[in-house]
Amino acid sequence: MLDTMKGLKRTHYCGEVEGIGSTVTVAGFVQRVRDKGSLMFVDLRDRTGIVQLVFDDTTEPAVFEKAKQIKSEYVLMAQGLLRERESKNNDIKTGNVEILVTDLRILSMAQTTPFEIVNDTKTNEELRLKYRYLDLRRKKLQDNLIMRHRIAKTAREYFYDNGFLEIETPMMMKSTPEGARDYLVPSRVHEGKFYALPQSPQIYKQLLMISGFDRYIQLARCFRDEDLRADRQPEFTQIDLEMSFMDVDEILELTEGFIKKLMKDVLDVDITTPLPRLTYNDAMSRYGSDKPDTRFGMEIQDLSDIVKDTEFSVFSSAIAAGGSVRAIVAKNAAGVLTRKEIDKLTEFSKGIGAKGLAYIRWHDDAPNCSFAKFLKEGELDAILSHLGCEKGDVVLIVADKNKVTLPVLGALRLKVGKQIGIVPDSGYNFLWITEFPFFEWDDESESWLAMHHPFTMPMEECLEYLDTDKGKVRAKAYDLVLNGIELCSGSIRITDPELQERMFRLLGLTDKEIEEKFGFLVDAYKYAAPPHGGLGIGLDRLSMLLCGADSLRDVVAFPKVKDASELMSQCPSAVDDKQLEELHIRTVVSEE
Amino acid sequence: MLDTMKGLKRTHYCGEVEGIGSTVTVAGFVQRVRDKGSLMFVDLRDRTGIVQLVFDDTTEPAVFEKAKQIKSEYVLMAQGLLRERESKNNDIKTGNVEILVTDLRILSMAQTTPFEIVNDTKTNEELRLKYRYLDLRRKKLQDNLIMRHRIAKTAREYFYDNGFLEIETPMMMKSTPEGARDYLVPSRVHEGKFYALPQSPQIYKQLLMISGFDRYIQLARCFRDEDLRADRQPEFTQIDLEMSFMDVDEILELTEGFIKKLMKDVLDVDITTPLPRLTYNDAMSRYGSDKPDTRFGMEIQDLSDIVKDTEFSVFSSAIAAGGSVRAIVAKNAAGVLTRKEIDKLTEFSKGIGAKGLAYIRWHDDAPNCSFAKFLKEGELDAILSHLGCEKGDVVLIVADKNKVTLPVLGALRLKVGKQIGIVPDSGYNFLWITEFPFFEWDDESESWLAMHHPFTMPMEECLEYLDTDKGKVRAKAYDLVLNGIELCSGSIRITDPELQERMFRLLGLTDKEIEEKFGFLVDAYKYAAPPHGGLGIGLDRLSMLLCGADSLRDVVAFPKVKDASELMSQCPSAVDDKQLEELHIRTVVSEE
Repeated sequence: MLDTMKGLKRTHYCGEVEGIGSTVTVAGFVQRVRDKGSLMFVDLRDRTGIVQLVFDDTTEPAVFEKAKQIKSEYVLMAQGLLRERESKNNDIKTGNVEILVTDLRILSMAQTTPFEIVNDTKTNEELRLKYRYLDLRRKKLQDNLIMRHRIAKTAREYFYDNGFLEIETPMMMKSTPEGARDYLVPSRVHEGKFYALPQSPQIYKQLLMISGFDRYIQLARCFRDEDLRADRQPEFTQIDLEMSFMDVDEILELTEGFIKKLMKDVLDVDITTPLPRLTYNDAMSRYGSDKPDTRFGMEIQDLSDIVKDTEFSVFSSAIAAGGSVRAIVAKNAAGVLTRKEIDKLTEFSKGIGAKGLAYIRWHDDAPNCSFAKFLKEGELDAILSHLGCEKGDVVLIVADKNKVTLPVLGALRLKVGKQIGIVPDSGYNFLWITEFPFFEWDDESESWLAMHHPFTMPMEECLEYLDTDKGKVRAKAYDLVLNGIELCSGSIRITDPELQERMFRLLGLTDKEIEEKFGFLVDAYKYAAPPHGGLGIGLDRLSMLLCGADSLRDVVAFPKVKDASELMSQCPSAVDDKQLEELHIRTVVSEE
Repeated sequence: MLDTMKGLKRTHYCGEVEGIGSTVTVAGFVQRVRDKGSLMFVDLRDRTGIVQLVFDDTTEPAVFEKAKQIKSEYVLMAQGLLRERESKNNDIKTGNVEILVTDLRILSMAQTTPFEIVNDTKTNEELRLKYRYLDLRRKKLQDNLIMRHRIAKTAREYFYDNGFLEIETPMMMKSTPEGARDYLVPSRVHEGKFYALPQSPQIYKQLLMISGFDRYIQLARCFRDEDLRADRQPEFTQIDLEMSFMDVDEILELTEGFIKKLMKDVLDVDITTPLPRLTYNDAMSRYGSDKPDTRFGMEIQDLSDIVKDTEFSVFSSAIAAGGSVRAIVAKNAAGVLTRKEIDKLTEFSKGIGAKGLAYIRWHDDAPNCSFAKFLKEGELDAILSHLGCEKGDVVLIVADKNKVTLPVLGALRLKVGKQIGIVPDSGYNFLWITEFPFFEWDDESESWLAMHHPFTMPMEECLEYLDTDKGKVRAKAYDLVLNGIELCSGSIRITDPELQERMFRLLGLTDKEIEEKFGFLVDAYKYAAPPHGGLGIGLDRLSMLLCGADSLRDVVAFPKVKDASELMSQCPSAVDDKQLEELHIRTVVSEE
């Protein structure tokens, strides 16, 4: 028979007991029992920490007998005298005290758990996800969710203090699939029609600006039915912001204020603002990435001018075709980057689109150059000198269209950086990337897509290229990058309905599609709109980075796995035919 | 050609300009233009209020000329000298000042709006919902959403300060339809399977207690696919709470603290705590409702003892069948409640299940009693005296099973109360209803359903009736009622897995259904759980009541109408066949 709480009320959390000599009441889960015959110790755990309960020869026999029944993970409430501990444990906050228990309640008993609830678990993730409610008892996951709570709290405080109103937008909205696939919800009332779950509250927040709410925030759940990679969840949360009468600089400045406060409040780390900014073009040519990790150097260097007259046709033809020859220099890496390792890097480069990888490895006295036989006298020296290359260094060179050289070298930079140990484990390098291209050419569909989204405002000075040279059109779009991971993405929006319709057309939408999908939005702008822009900050990623977690699954209470299922409740699941009938749908299951 | 903001930065919101003699910059929408030739006034509006812009003979000609183009709803930015106004307007905060404009920017032009943006609009709601973004420009709706923001903010502050952690639970979960219909989401990866949108995060929040998070809050979106009544939305928001190691009293006390703070912070109204409490049984017998409006009296009185020996068979047979004869007394209502009006009330009562309505109307010297001819001498006097009835009063009597008499009289009480003007417009009568029945008999399915939900803990002293007398089983469930509207609902949960399985079975679930739908939950409790309970507070309803709004649509930014569609974007809508194909479903549309 279980006890009740009757007559007891918790006075302290386990990790926060204080007041030696006073009577305290705590409650929690049993972490560990040490039974030494006439002396018993029980570590009691709650979300704040652990406190030691003691039962000894002064303990009432009935209480002592009950204590003997305690096992791991039982839920207890205990009242007793807080006293100094004989053998102190400096590893935990309350390691200097213990509670000599006078009233013990066993509130719930536990079966043996399928794995031990310890921080450094070796249990495989699948089993832990099945018993997620047990895995969530681990301090690490508890701390992560507490940190996530604090991040969200800080975001609300900061933006509320800056005049932002939290306004909820619909979760069941119109399907206007543009980027990713929509999750759909069949309507029962409207036969054959569907709602979509929001990929983001983009359209609604723009409408709120048209309505004059001036500054909007929402911690918004967003949904994308994409093939899941390791760092994606089908549903995720965005600190979603939109503001009126502000241009790019003011929006970035306000956001930086949040980052600064967040890092201080949550991690006690001082961040210098303004944060560095790079244009998209600069980021690509220096780091081969629009989300560079700037915690280390090894920037990409352009060799085109140096090698443009070489007889090595791989170089010269790339340049002649409008491409470039570029390199990174791995300093003092010749020991690690053996010929064999370089061969692997070559394969890696080919795997991501390069035709090959040229290199210079200066391990011994003379540099070993993969294209030496094509070089005239002095050319190698010119290359080495241009690159500032010294004995011990390795140079990796890619020659191709810029669309290939830059991302391939960007990927090599990251890979080699880790390999040779120059990517720091710590540090928080925030960086704005600005002036993104508006359009991006999609080889598959052979059409121009919007790199950000179709509501993004092109930079005024680029409007002239809209019809003539789409690749040249830059947008008032910006991303915030932290240590090579995109944290946040935003833009100034188009507020001129004519320009908006024009952009839709340039993106290949027919007039009918524009009307059907976005008619109400284009209409809305005809009734005047303040200049406005905004951004979305990925709360899951931000939490992951600030918690130092390896996976989004470690900062989401009930995550889904790669195939978008949840292992604990086993969803998605089959439903009753009656439910489907009411929704006017039928499943079409393939025969295999 | 439109202007840009270049060189200007807003210094004040319109409703907050201050510092006479200084230069200020404001931005907003044009509420009104008054053109008096060489003198022009423009009322500029933002979410904080209105400020008057002035253009006069000292205004630079170029600026003046531009001002002449301004029309209603244009978006402007304006800089100028803040000065005292000659003709003051005491109706608005900034009615004593005006801005003599020196720099004017027309940032966006507006077509003529389909209706005028004024607070007391006469435009029909359908048109306003179609142009929701324009309707949201009205001060009333803006103030409502600002109030809603403040309510949510206060809730977070209060519960965070009390140790609650905000933890997000999945929106795509397992379908376990119990109460209402689920909204379903077809899975692309898992053919023929579905997610459901949460009717509430109930199961997840209980799991979080099992995980030891101790105190959980989430402002959670919930979804119910029900036929919509005037006061329902398919998606709504709940201040969702769950807490460990607390019993009913402590939970109610903590919640009262929130209500007290909220009323003070948001409306500056002082509420006395503890709030009054009524058991479900008392509420039913006194008010005929489990959500009584206690702002007025006219309580139900039991006449059974007085009339049990009467020859009026309607009364005696009702009592003999185990029912009752009950009455309400409408004081001084004989003037308003004419015979004709009483006939209407009789029809109304029949419409909601009564067989008829007996009455005594004491308008003239002698009371007019509808069943006088059945009464023996003295019986009418005994009734009148028992009821404390005086000349001028009207007595309405229902005789039937309690299941009929009480709700019918409860409904009559509300209806008559409004009719005779004794329901105050103002006042905030909060009230707890406790000890709800666990089971409720459903005539349609001829089975016992859970009145709250199947995870609710029965009161310990009622466990003995589980098999023998289900109607007698009361639960540790509680509702918070405000002025006759249910604001919040909660309970202590079952933490004993055996009892939980037993309750599922008593509710008619087969072992297979229990395993399939709730197996993981029952399992979870086998690993020990702290005693826990919680509640959900309807944010939409709370906002509606505190805003004094008539409809939930007035406190939701983008509401849906009765048929669950959104008139602005016209969703739900048809989607591409390709989308359905990927989701392995096909629509089945009826032929009519």
